[in-house]
Amino acid sequence: MLSQSKIKYIRSLSNKKFRIQYRQFIVEGTKSVKELLNSNYIADSIYATKDWINNHSDSSVKINPIEISENEMGKISQLTTPQNVLGIFNIPDISINNLSLSGALTLMLDDIKDPGNMGTIIRIADWFGIKQIICSPKSVDIYNPKVVQGSMGSIARVNVAYANLLDILQNKSENIPVYGALLDGENIYKTTLESSGIIIIGNESEGISENLLPHISKKIMIPSFNTNLQKAESLNAAIAAGIICAEFRRRAI
Amino acid sequence: MLSQSKIKYIRSLSNKKFRIQYRQFIVEGTKSVKELLNSNYIADSIYATKDWINNHSDSSVKINPIEISENEMGKISQLTTPQNVLGIFNIPDISINNLSLSGALTLMLDDIKDPGNMGTIIRIADWFGIKQIICSPKSVDIYNPKVVQGSMGSIARVNVAYANLLDILQNKSENIPVYGALLDGENIYKTTLESSGIIIIGNESEGISENLLPHISKKIMIPSFNTNLQKAESLNAAIAAGIICAEFRRRAI
Repeated sequence: MLSQSKIKYIRSLSNKKFRIQYRQFIVEGTKSVKELLNSNYIADSIYATKDWINNHSDSSVKINPIEISENEMGKISQLTTPQNVLGIFNIPDISINNLSLSGALTLMLDDIKDPGNMGTIIRIADWFGIKQIICSPKSVDIYNPKVVQGSMGSIARVNVAYANLLDILQNKSENIPVYGALLDGENIYKTTLESSGIIIIGNESEGISENLLPHISKKIMIPSFNTNLQKAESLNAAIAAGIICAEFRRRAI
Repeated sequence: MLSQSKIKYIRSLSNKKFRIQYRQFIVEGTKSVKELLNSNYIADSIYATKDWINNHSDSSVKINPIEISENEMGKISQLTTPQNVLGIFNIPDISINNLSLSGALTLMLDDIKDPGNMGTIIRIADWFGIKQIICSPKSVDIYNPKVVQGSMGSIARVNVAYANLLDILQNKSENIPVYGALLDGENIYKTTLESSGIIIIGNESEGISENLLPHISKKIMIPSFNTNLQKAESLNAAIAAGIICAEFRRRAI
């Protein structure tokens, strides 16, 4: 049985203001909840329907779920079709000091605004073994329910920090290369790529901010191989991130 | 001035049932409307605010827009933040007979359900000069407003037909190779790829349908290069499509 104040509290976590205030966020669905439970994230509470609890009694769910009705699940879920399990997790303190820029590939996201793109990029990073992402403060919050959903559990394994990107680029060690995805860049398939460094992906419509450009050591571009005059102006930011990460990993092997 | 019945008609086009009945669809925003006007699509009518008409009087808009108020635009728009121009276009009859499978790359989408993924895949095809896509009947309708929006005008340049995929694979010429994106496929970076053929991308959660598998001549897989046990199970369908199309084009040059 869920109290009205609990329902109100859980629903408030779909709002960034309250996530910041309470330092908690919502995760829905068996796969995502289990991946978070098997990570460094700390669970506050897990709510599940009777059916779900019966089907997962022998599983890896280490904390006892609180049984609620499907009707109650409908009230706290952010989904059109509620899944039968919802977890409340604590937001960890991940700062730029937790990341190490040397000897690793790091994605740097400059104002990625679309929650779907952000979730997908975190999933890409996880697939390609990229363990850290630095987001500009204006990027969408990774604890937004749509981002959590889109990442399919990958937020459990990728460290995401929010920081002033210019500060980082100005203060990083000089021998860390900085790649920027730009339409006027060098053909990514014809240029040399180091196995580590920072890869900057710009905002969906504005691209990379003007003030970061002087810090890019190599502009890279995904060629279209399309000779028609009329064609797409660009690729979606997440697609560009996927193709670029794949190419960096292909080269390093 | 828009009549109530006109408003009702335009709003009905967000529903697939009425798009099928009336053979028309909605396009919003300057870029998308202009790209459709500069294509083989036939415009029925363009609605725009006074400001938009004043700013685009010397432009490539070949048919006279009907001036409506911002309030009226709000009533017919599908967007949270309405753009100042909305076009009604006729849905063309594109059948499998309009496509030529020989000597070209063709994307085959097996029940892609997410409108964002569909729009993004059409944009990827346009970027990489892939002129045709065949969708299974259960795939999301490309004239769904979210698909049109996500394609960023690329539906103007890519021919998309809906057809029974099994029929096509059974009846196509034998020398057209069929590639399927599968997690147990060959490493795409270590196998030979022809410059033309059919590339099948499966449903977001189910992958490629069982009955299509025997018709795949080569299963391909995007390696994760991630040696950790815990990692993302797969890539998003649109990301996989992007990386695969990029690799086919890279090889052919």
